[in-house]
Amino acid sequence: MSEARFDVVGIGSAIVDVLAHAEDVFLSKHDASKGTMLMVDENQSEALYKDIGPAIEASGGSAANTMAGIASFGGKPAFIGKTMDDQLGGIFAHDIRAVGVHYDTEPLSDGLATARCIILVTPDAQRTMFTYLGASGSLSAADMDEELIASSKVLYIEGYQWDLPETKKAIIRACETATKSGGKVALTLSDPFVVERHRNDLFDLVNEYVDIVFANEQEITTLFLSNSFDEAVEAVEAVGGRVEVAALTRGAEGAVTVTKESLINTPAMPAGKVVDTTGAGDLYAAGFLFGYTRGDDLKTCANLGALAAGEVICHLGARPEVSLKDLDVKLD
Amino acid sequence: MSEARFDVVGIGSAIVDVLAHAEDVFLSKHDASKGTMLMVDENQSEALYKDIGPAIEASGGSAANTMAGIASFGGKPAFIGKTMDDQLGGIFAHDIRAVGVHYDTEPLSDGLATARCIILVTPDAQRTMFTYLGASGSLSAADMDEELIASSKVLYIEGYQWDLPETKKAIIRACETATKSGGKVALTLSDPFVVERHRNDLFDLVNEYVDIVFANEQEITTLFLSNSFDEAVEAVEAVGGRVEVAALTRGAEGAVTVTKESLINTPAMPAGKVVDTTGAGDLYAAGFLFGYTRGDDLKTCANLGALAAGEVICHLGARPEVSLKDLDVKLD
Repeated sequence: MSEARFDVVGIGSAIVDVLAHAEDVFLSKHDASKGTMLMVDENQSEALYKDIGPAIEASGGSAANTMAGIASFGGKPAFIGKTMDDQLGGIFAHDIRAVGVHYDTEPLSDGLATARCIILVTPDAQRTMFTYLGASGSLSAADMDEELIASSKVLYIEGYQWDLPETKKAIIRACETATKSGGKVALTLSDPFVVERHRNDLFDLVNEYVDIVFANEQEITTLFLSNSFDEAVEAVEAVGGRVEVAALTRGAEGAVTVTKESLINTPAMPAGKVVDTTGAGDLYAAGFLFGYTRGDDLKTCANLGALAAGEVICHLGARPEVSLKDLDVKLD
Repeated sequence: MSEARFDVVGIGSAIVDVLAHAEDVFLSKHDASKGTMLMVDENQSEALYKDIGPAIEASGGSAANTMAGIASFGGKPAFIGKTMDDQLGGIFAHDIRAVGVHYDTEPLSDGLATARCIILVTPDAQRTMFTYLGASGSLSAADMDEELIASSKVLYIEGYQWDLPETKKAIIRACETATKSGGKVALTLSDPFVVERHRNDLFDLVNEYVDIVFANEQEITTLFLSNSFDEAVEAVEAVGGRVEVAALTRGAEGAVTVTKESLINTPAMPAGKVVDTTGAGDLYAAGFLFGYTRGDDLKTCANLGALAAGEVICHLGARPEVSLKDLDVKLD
């Protein structure tokens, strides 16, 4: 790879989050499994929206949140994801550029609206998500800027995209572009149900292209059909393919960084009272990848991940409210 | 008045707030006087938006925030204000209904977009506002639901509307409707620059229609051309007309409730660390009017105002994040 223009390029859904508080009984009423992501169509999204309490809107999207986090640390990220040319699309584009992420995917001029994710935060600070993909599901090969992907140190992709056959194909091509140009590929497994729906495909992807895997406990055990987290860790250590590191998060129990040679435990670092876990995994990946592309050792990468996740869980919303660069300086 | 259907009906701008953090130097660059409200046109609003950092969107509007606060206390408020039938208009309508405010103003089907207020929060927790009125400036006589106004105990109006000649005329008619049907009229002076621009008109309004005046220190001294807050308080006591009470707020110094017979000092009650003063005055009015329409004495009204303001200043945004009814119970 010639000199990289970007540290990380993320490909994912361009989504505006609609965040509201809800009680557990409200989730049961809507047949939602707490802590997971449900796909809904436009009508379901509208019906649910009518039923929820007052909300706030904030830009979201898993990979987009991770890129925003890397920018907040002072890194150089780029993002590829599809919006519509509507008010929410304008909000998404503004926010990701305003934090310093390179973003120039052409929005749709008509058709489906910009994606919305209704996020219900229960009193235990857990988040449950109802995603209407809208325009973000139209991401295709035409949007994959090969020059951009080839000039990034890491390509970061979402398991979420495996629900979209066209997008998935385009992303696999992007993985080829990245590896051919000497870049690394990082994948987040995104959601246990996503892993369940696409286990074989994701397993093949990991073996063929992925250098760095991000997953939480449920996702990694689902991928390896393991009975416990420890069993899943053993499965990761034994995995063939090109995986060099698995960055596994365990909520309040912190994170485990697994390579063939080592296993590093990192405690969680909540910055205060935990009020909303939305974005915890995304920001863990942000800190980790910021450190990784800067050349830090894996222990420091994991600490940076815990630091970023620890900030985002102490307020409503999935993106940092303060400069992570400033927090990073304090960590030193 | 026959039995009231509503405790308070508010008339004001239907606005979505765009909240972002900013440094003092950014305000200077945009010629903004900290703590005040600047009117901007669509182009100025767009240009400023491009320049600010990442933001969150949340329903706002001064009188709308006050009605949301009254609903959160368990009162029965209604709101009249104009949106466009666009995404931000949908957000405004959802949020105000979701919290329990009666709202059925017909949105515009084309023309100006739903109003936006870019709110910059500086590190000292002060807010400075840049309002693009858009559709909310189209509120007119046709939107004044006389039956609704006549069946409310209090009509609550914003000084902000005095920048809009047509809307102002329609509101004066609403004041006539309210007083004829035995209701009270409450006015918030809104902003010192608004008072400066329309002092004579607002002075006449107060004398002719207003029973309850809400103002902060700068607004009340501007109205009476007083040299000090104490001088303004004397002016309030001496005012003719029908004013029975002035509810004056002084930020961290608390509030003063003035009648011809009494003067009550109420301390500020921040619920924690003050992070964003947006909505402090609006929520003070909410608590006060909730108590007033419930029949509480003025001291209790002022305490409820301080309680509601104390909640809203401890988080980003202008509407309560928790049930004020629950806080009220704890106060007892």
